[in-house]
Amino acid sequence: MTGRTPARFTADDYRARMERAVRAAADAGLAGLLVAPGPDLVWLTGYAPPAVTERLTLLVLTPDRDPVLVVPALEAPDAAEAVGAPALTLRDWTDGKDPYAATAALLDTGKRFGVSDNAWALHLLRLQKALPDSSYASLTEALPMLRAVKDAAELELMAAAGAAADATYEEIRKVPFAGRRESEVGADLADLLRRFGHSQVDFTIVASGPNGANPHHEVGDRVIEHGDMIVLDFGGLKDGYGSDTSRTVHVGEPTDEERRVHDLVREAQEAGFRAVRPGVACQEIDRAARAVIADAGYGEYFIHRTGHGIGVTTHEPPYMIEGEEQPLVPGMCFSVEPGVYLPGRFGVRIEDIVTVTEDGGRRLNDTTREMVMVD
Amino acid sequence: MTGRTPARFTADDYRARMERAVRAAADAGLAGLLVAPGPDLVWLTGYAPPAVTERLTLLVLTPDRDPVLVVPALEAPDAAEAVGAPALTLRDWTDGKDPYAATAALLDTGKRFGVSDNAWALHLLRLQKALPDSSYASLTEALPMLRAVKDAAELELMAAAGAAADATYEEIRKVPFAGRRESEVGADLADLLRRFGHSQVDFTIVASGPNGANPHHEVGDRVIEHGDMIVLDFGGLKDGYGSDTSRTVHVGEPTDEERRVHDLVREAQEAGFRAVRPGVACQEIDRAARAVIADAGYGEYFIHRTGHGIGVTTHEPPYMIEGEEQPLVPGMCFSVEPGVYLPGRFGVRIEDIVTVTEDGGRRLNDTTREMVMVD
Repeated sequence: MTGRTPARFTADDYRARMERAVRAAADAGLAGLLVAPGPDLVWLTGYAPPAVTERLTLLVLTPDRDPVLVVPALEAPDAAEAVGAPALTLRDWTDGKDPYAATAALLDTGKRFGVSDNAWALHLLRLQKALPDSSYASLTEALPMLRAVKDAAELELMAAAGAAADATYEEIRKVPFAGRRESEVGADLADLLRRFGHSQVDFTIVASGPNGANPHHEVGDRVIEHGDMIVLDFGGLKDGYGSDTSRTVHVGEPTDEERRVHDLVREAQEAGFRAVRPGVACQEIDRAARAVIADAGYGEYFIHRTGHGIGVTTHEPPYMIEGEEQPLVPGMCFSVEPGVYLPGRFGVRIEDIVTVTEDGGRRLNDTTREMVMVD
Repeated sequence: MTGRTPARFTADDYRARMERAVRAAADAGLAGLLVAPGPDLVWLTGYAPPAVTERLTLLVLTPDRDPVLVVPALEAPDAAEAVGAPALTLRDWTDGKDPYAATAALLDTGKRFGVSDNAWALHLLRLQKALPDSSYASLTEALPMLRAVKDAAELELMAAAGAAADATYEEIRKVPFAGRRESEVGADLADLLRRFGHSQVDFTIVASGPNGANPHHEVGDRVIEHGDMIVLDFGGLKDGYGSDTSRTVHVGEPTDEERRVHDLVREAQEAGFRAVRPGVACQEIDRAARAVIADAGYGEYFIHRTGHGIGVTTHEPPYMIEGEEQPLVPGMCFSVEPGVYLPGRFGVRIEDIVTVTEDGGRRLNDTTREMVMVD
């Protein structure tokens, strides 16, 4: 799910992030954080194990001691090479030993700890057994905003990832669509993302004609035809930070209805973007975009939330969804991606990554949002 | 972690697997199984969601009702296309609704349930909250052998994956090593695995010279030199089933010590293989291989277990490790991969996938285990 972070961050950067995380945990009433391999660990230490397995790797952050990384002995040499390693104490364990008891020994009993969303149930259950008096909260629940606010160096990387996705869109417009399978255009998108510097491609959605009405359709064997609307939605990681953009193109001239729906989604996307400013609740972005579509009578065809955060993953808090009252803070990055999906017919989605600035929002994608005709 | 399973399995195959799983759960004192996206879900239903996210997808298997797949509405069309879908009831949920309450409504209170090892802690914690009177056991703990015994069709796929890995080894022997970076040889390995039919490459370890002494070193920037020992360990998924093989090659003529250590590891691998037969405990495979190395005075340099199971993942139970008393059963597939690692100098590992037959073991890798000289 994540790549290694770029060399531009130093051990001091990671030390500062870990200190910030411990303070945030204390403010949230937590006695510490238990961080499994994945985006949280990459963000806090720069370390991504060669593989995520049943062997426990766990970063233990508590206020009263330096950060400890519990790590299988086999993987200790890799962990020692992580950029953040100088800010960590490595505690390695060998096959046959009990790493849960070793972890429990680092923790006070009867306390509440935050644990990475994507920690394996296997590990959580064993920790619960090793520390039966403690309780646990997922990081999304307890510290949803831990990684949400990006600093200047991170914003630069986010902007570079967005620019690479934009360059991909400019190029994909030139390839032939009609007569080719969705999967072939998807492969072109992946090649372009890599050519423009992505180390990891997370998704390349090419949803043509009726497939466009399924918002999560990826690519299939369907051969694209003249007259198709095609939702393109692609992204991944470049230098450890995410891209994610959608545009809806058309093979040949669209019908009046296709043009009307596309204009509507574009207007909704613009309304969502314009609602972005510090202090506004996330749900207001959803409401702003949704109101445009609902007012035009298409409300029942906008069947997902308006956006999601992005950073060292392509999909994370905060979510732009009804009920999310988290206020926007400068430095947050998220998608604004309304859509309309007409079952059995076609779909339209338009998506930019937006970052919150002191006085509004700034788009990290800025290719044309007008409908583009392709061949 | 997993690819889609090959089309050769039918909805009836998946129905039979789910029925078998429910019976095994009951035998283990469990009221049901909660299966998250990943290898268990692929094996039971043929379904792999387009992405694993914070949105809950969960297969609920209980004795008293047909299997239910709780799935985000966005992904329901994908789930409906899974080969196993006819054997499932899809229960979709839309953003903003509570899928944990919906799942809890399917389960009896006060019971114990098995949950996939790799289910996210986020989901487990919310289920624990929604069903506070219930308890949970990881599938590795409760039903470690659920996927361990392969049927004839699965064994055919395992053998085909092994043959593709063997073909990769035959070809990689011919490429230049000296003067190239480990990462370049690793890329060659990945290309070859794909050329021979792998849809997913999980690891391509090229550990040269002193890097070979780190059993989990993957590939690095080190330029391979004349005189290096090089551990090659590579595998992935072909048609949904795993390969994993290691050979240790040498650039030019080895020293006497290098040859002696290589011979020793080969002898240990042979001893581990020969110990395989139905009814023997997994730990006996580890003991057999380890004894050879220990008797030669190198015991402290064999720093990992002797093997791991393989199937729809490249790394799963059963484990060939001291303390594992699980008896071998015909149809089980696992690695036999002893190694010796001399810090700062070099390492040797030799690995085959072996399947248990009625009267012993059968290797699914069978390239030469003699040391091969490369250029």
